[in-house]
Amino acid sequence: MTAPPPAPQLADVRRAAERIAPRIHRTPVLTSRSLDALVGARLFFKAENLQRTGAFKMRGASNAVAQLEDPERGVATHSSGNHGAALALAAQQRGIRCCVVMPEGSTESKVAAVRAYGAEIRFCPPTQADRERVAAEVVAATGASLVHPYDDTRIIAGQATAALELLEQVPDLDLIVAPLGGGGLLSGTTITTAALRPRCRVLGAEPTGADDGQRSLRAGRITPLATVDTIADGLRATVGKLPFSILQQHRIEVETATDDEIRQAMHLLWSRLKSVVEPSAAVPLAVLLREPVEVADLRIGVILSGGNLDFGDP
Amino acid sequence: MTAPPPAPQLADVRRAAERIAPRIHRTPVLTSRSLDALVGARLFFKAENLQRTGAFKMRGASNAVAQLEDPERGVATHSSGNHGAALALAAQQRGIRCCVVMPEGSTESKVAAVRAYGAEIRFCPPTQADRERVAAEVVAATGASLVHPYDDTRIIAGQATAALELLEQVPDLDLIVAPLGGGGLLSGTTITTAALRPRCRVLGAEPTGADDGQRSLRAGRITPLATVDTIADGLRATVGKLPFSILQQHRIEVETATDDEIRQAMHLLWSRLKSVVEPSAAVPLAVLLREPVEVADLRIGVILSGGNLDFGDP
Repeated sequence: MTAPPPAPQLADVRRAAERIAPRIHRTPVLTSRSLDALVGARLFFKAENLQRTGAFKMRGASNAVAQLEDPERGVATHSSGNHGAALALAAQQRGIRCCVVMPEGSTESKVAAVRAYGAEIRFCPPTQADRERVAAEVVAATGASLVHPYDDTRIIAGQATAALELLEQVPDLDLIVAPLGGGGLLSGTTITTAALRPRCRVLGAEPTGADDGQRSLRAGRITPLATVDTIADGLRATVGKLPFSILQQHRIEVETATDDEIRQAMHLLWSRLKSVVEPSAAVPLAVLLREPVEVADLRIGVILSGGNLDFGDP
Repeated sequence: MTAPPPAPQLADVRRAAERIAPRIHRTPVLTSRSLDALVGARLFFKAENLQRTGAFKMRGASNAVAQLEDPERGVATHSSGNHGAALALAAQQRGIRCCVVMPEGSTESKVAAVRAYGAEIRFCPPTQADRERVAAEVVAATGASLVHPYDDTRIIAGQATAALELLEQVPDLDLIVAPLGGGGLLSGTTITTAALRPRCRVLGAEPTGADDGQRSLRAGRITPLATVDTIADGLRATVGKLPFSILQQHRIEVETATDDEIRQAMHLLWSRLKSVVEPSAAVPLAVLLREPVEVADLRIGVILSGGNLDFGDP
């Protein structure tokens, strides 16, 4: 097993924030009295569904593409959608080629977005091993630089800028909850929060049907699942080595929510916050609604990770 | 035919804004590069879907309830939902009774909201005549003050504060588009805009299946439809006497969009603006997408009137 790349530090996060400022939105923080009442706490939603490409992934992708050593070779990645779209747009803005390996069955609007930003798409079977194998083939064939969706220092430093902004916008938080898929967002949130506001707890939120992160942290080693089953399509990946080591070092805990709870939380965010969020972005609220006592009267930051959905008829 | 009540003037609108400031949200203005590109203009969306009760109706209702002469007698109204919910909350805040006459078939979440704000609900057949008849019965039986959803000087002055805020937030607009149902929002928008920025055009947007406003303005007299058929449940009412007289005086034009066009515009607002809006709120964008040439390069204010929808499973 190879060693993970180095963990970013707060200084890396601050440099990332300066580097990507012209390329991203400073997203607003939304609040809702009725959601506060339901949870019994004060909730501050960092609206990364309003980020460019509709997800926080634009932060990490912009930071990585800005630091490429051989940009002319282009970039490649594997992604269920949001990282792929973000890398595609970041590459398009820099005028370089991008190839995205996407699992079959990816959300249609996410496939369309990757294509709209000018990237080449290669479909693969929907397993972690297949994603990585096909991406490695693309890299071998084209010489492109692999920009891994989360096991990458530059990506984590970029995703960490969401919490940096949130803590500037709402300094006195007691708790920040972020979804956990591959772990780029949660580990970045951890680095920023531990450095800037050490008394603020960070909690991961994961679907019950893709709870490899919780299992891995409890077991003390990365523990992939045999099968993954959740509507939270952005959180199906196995936690990465570097995110895992950061989460483990900071003793981050993870709570889970079922698909029914995720769907209910998503509908609440649609109906009460009037915000379009995708299932993955609703997992933190779903977790908070499961244990209202423990969070009573806290000031809680919730990272709404993205808002990319397929819409049928209303 | 009785004469309409007096039209509010800009001074009334400014007094309404001061009066209701503690009761309402100053809603943000949202933008989207991709929607700008689709329309070929710069769009500034006044997000009244983020208003309290999820619709601009809270403005007029708060203004009317604050000015009641006999508050202890309570209030009554007829409404397909948003005005009813707004009046219910405004009455609850003032500690007075409220009865809302709602047409059968009203959007479930709107019925639930009226009930949640503590109002009594009376259902009636879904025609304009039945609404007015049952509301008159309630007034006769209870002595409540009727707060008409749009044929009321106080209501129009309140709704006019949305455009007042919008023109403060984005002063140099060339055009403002607002949906037209009973006409409270559109006539209020007209009064504010004509007084503050006379060179800015105001355009009404109406569903093809409820185009009594366009027909009435073209005919020079209120022309109710025999049947109304549109998904835009907030725009099914017949234009009121006072709104009609204001729109007629200012020579306001109205354009229509079909339900398919409204549905498509609503999906665009969901997917691009990541904003939950109801069908009625999407009619202005649907109209703009029909005639992209005429609006080329203009700076256009669009009033997103509300965001109250029934959600099924995602």
